[in-house]
Amino acid sequence: MAFSFELQAKSGKARAARISTNHGEILTPVFMPVGTLGTVKAMSPHELEETKAQIILGNTYHLYMRPGHELIAKAGGLHSFINWQKPMLTDSGGFQVMSLAALRKITRDGVKFRSHIDGSLHYFTPAKVMEIQEALGADIIMSFDECPPYPATRDYVEKSLSTTLRWAEEGLHAFDNHANQALFGIVQGGIYEDLRERSARALMDLDFVGYSIGGLAVGEEKADMFRITEFLHNILPEAKPRYLMGVGTPSDLLNNIARGVDMFDCVMPTRNARKGSIFTRYGKMIIKAARYKEDFRPIDEACECYTCQHFSRAYIRHWITMNEILGMRLATIHSLHFYQELMSLARQAIFENRYQDFLAEMLPVLDRIIE
Amino acid sequence: MAFSFELQAKSGKARAARISTNHGEILTPVFMPVGTLGTVKAMSPHELEETKAQIILGNTYHLYMRPGHELIAKAGGLHSFINWQKPMLTDSGGFQVMSLAALRKITRDGVKFRSHIDGSLHYFTPAKVMEIQEALGADIIMSFDECPPYPATRDYVEKSLSTTLRWAEEGLHAFDNHANQALFGIVQGGIYEDLRERSARALMDLDFVGYSIGGLAVGEEKADMFRITEFLHNILPEAKPRYLMGVGTPSDLLNNIARGVDMFDCVMPTRNARKGSIFTRYGKMIIKAARYKEDFRPIDEACECYTCQHFSRAYIRHWITMNEILGMRLATIHSLHFYQELMSLARQAIFENRYQDFLAEMLPVLDRIIE
Repeated sequence: MAFSFELQAKSGKARAARISTNHGEILTPVFMPVGTLGTVKAMSPHELEETKAQIILGNTYHLYMRPGHELIAKAGGLHSFINWQKPMLTDSGGFQVMSLAALRKITRDGVKFRSHIDGSLHYFTPAKVMEIQEALGADIIMSFDECPPYPATRDYVEKSLSTTLRWAEEGLHAFDNHANQALFGIVQGGIYEDLRERSARALMDLDFVGYSIGGLAVGEEKADMFRITEFLHNILPEAKPRYLMGVGTPSDLLNNIARGVDMFDCVMPTRNARKGSIFTRYGKMIIKAARYKEDFRPIDEACECYTCQHFSRAYIRHWITMNEILGMRLATIHSLHFYQELMSLARQAIFENRYQDFLAEMLPVLDRIIE
Repeated sequence: MAFSFELQAKSGKARAARISTNHGEILTPVFMPVGTLGTVKAMSPHELEETKAQIILGNTYHLYMRPGHELIAKAGGLHSFINWQKPMLTDSGGFQVMSLAALRKITRDGVKFRSHIDGSLHYFTPAKVMEIQEALGADIIMSFDECPPYPATRDYVEKSLSTTLRWAEEGLHAFDNHANQALFGIVQGGIYEDLRERSARALMDLDFVGYSIGGLAVGEEKADMFRITEFLHNILPEAKPRYLMGVGTPSDLLNNIARGVDMFDCVMPTRNARKGSIFTRYGKMIIKAARYKEDFRPIDEACECYTCQHFSRAYIRHWITMNEILGMRLATIHSLHFYQELMSLARQAIFENRYQDFLAEMLPVLDRIIE
């Protein structure tokens, strides 16, 4: 198989590793920008590379709907279609089926649902989701899972868990493109430690290449999220990657790295940037604020991103206020570049075995809104 | 003065020239992309440079409203604010005051109007418009004009013309930044040749650095537009630039170059591209058409633009259909690059004194929709 995971350093529970794929290496901890419909909103693949993104995520559900996995396969796969030659990951579609699709009916074998776009009828089974992800051709792919809503009763989560486990096994059996793609299993179980343990151990028996932690960042308390990732740290195998799906803010990333997570994805830096909330190492900059109107400094004077090298806060404020595309682009570039810088600093702190100090230093700053 | 105009070659009435400004040279015929609010929609200044744009246009009215000319002056002028180091041109604001502003009252001395944004009251006089354009700092600026609607009675156009002429003279007297900015007068007069002649000769008596042709492309027949530009060719001085404001399609450009026009601006290539109508040397490509769904060729296989070097029709179609920013960007890049290529080919044909042949060869292709 083209996939390997090499643990390089630890600092407390925090881990630094090197992942190898057919499309190149990924150094962890890693943040993966989200390219819902094939690319990251407002960005060209070349700009994404300049933000130092190592891997991007595509949404299986969205790409299946439009333009369709068969079309993408004809184009030579997602890498070729979107002109991105570095690693990619696709999710399972499970989260979108639950949150977007209409009239879904979950059975033992899969989910029947209607498209959120045109109401057409579709049927996802574990094997079908493998077929779609093989056609898309990402380097890392996910088992189909049922993602329970939050809040959900323990009883619902437990039943859902059995479904997800059955589907994981069926997907694994249906999948045979091991030469090119690494299949991760998704740990579910809500905020219940015993269910999380049951889920993790069952997936570990199936021996997946990596383990995703699903069903968090869906509305639960942060303390619950951290409790579950910390709990899973002691269960999941040290020699395989852990990917916390759909997380999060800069402090969420650092807090979960402290609990042994290696990989993250989230729309937050890109979505917030387009609305003018820009992440920086001094906190969140709300660029529409009047104080930036005549502020001709870059967002971050020490930053090396394209935005900070060429444009002022006043300029970006003008564009974001006008809802102009260039403003969204410039804000997105900075926020993504900052996320990558933050991961790089975290990695360095892990290698230097001072991750707790780094965390203590960064946390008070990251979550504040710059006044 | 920093401005010079050197006529380099002629082919029939078609002209090739070199314009020099403090921010560099412009080779004509030239198309100027429109940066309404300070930059060209969806483009970064670096991408614009890659399309070979030599000069871009900013709208005085819009920039005065937001972010305001005083703010831009504090930033060191428009070039510095938007990070564009090549030549720029600002229009007079006259067209927008007439087409956008509410409750306008035109007097001898200027126009009182309410902002189309917040209803606030404003007063543009010829001197005020000079003050705004001096603060913006473009290399080429325009006299304030009254732009009559179309259709308008001859009587209205004649009265409006006197106003525009008085304002041109007042603006010229108020303006004193000749070291850095070249002031053009705007010829009005609708579709009436005698009024156009009166307007042109009066402006020529004032000895402007260049002459703009305003009040065309406002709804009149193409034949009327061509008749007026051809008529003005015999009146306007050969040794000064002629700028046809707000024009147009690729064939409009070529047809007006054949009638002695040097400079053009229009939102058409950028606005149409964002909606998926892409200009190519084979005609207009309506990229949403089903035939492009599985068409993995670039828009134009021989084109050297960023879009054609990296992305397929199928990919751009996917993004434009999804209303995604990257699709708008890629389509805009190709259309702007094509406009610049077309101007470059026209210039070459003029130097080789075969402009009529070039025109005859290009016209049948440019206006068609690719089937």
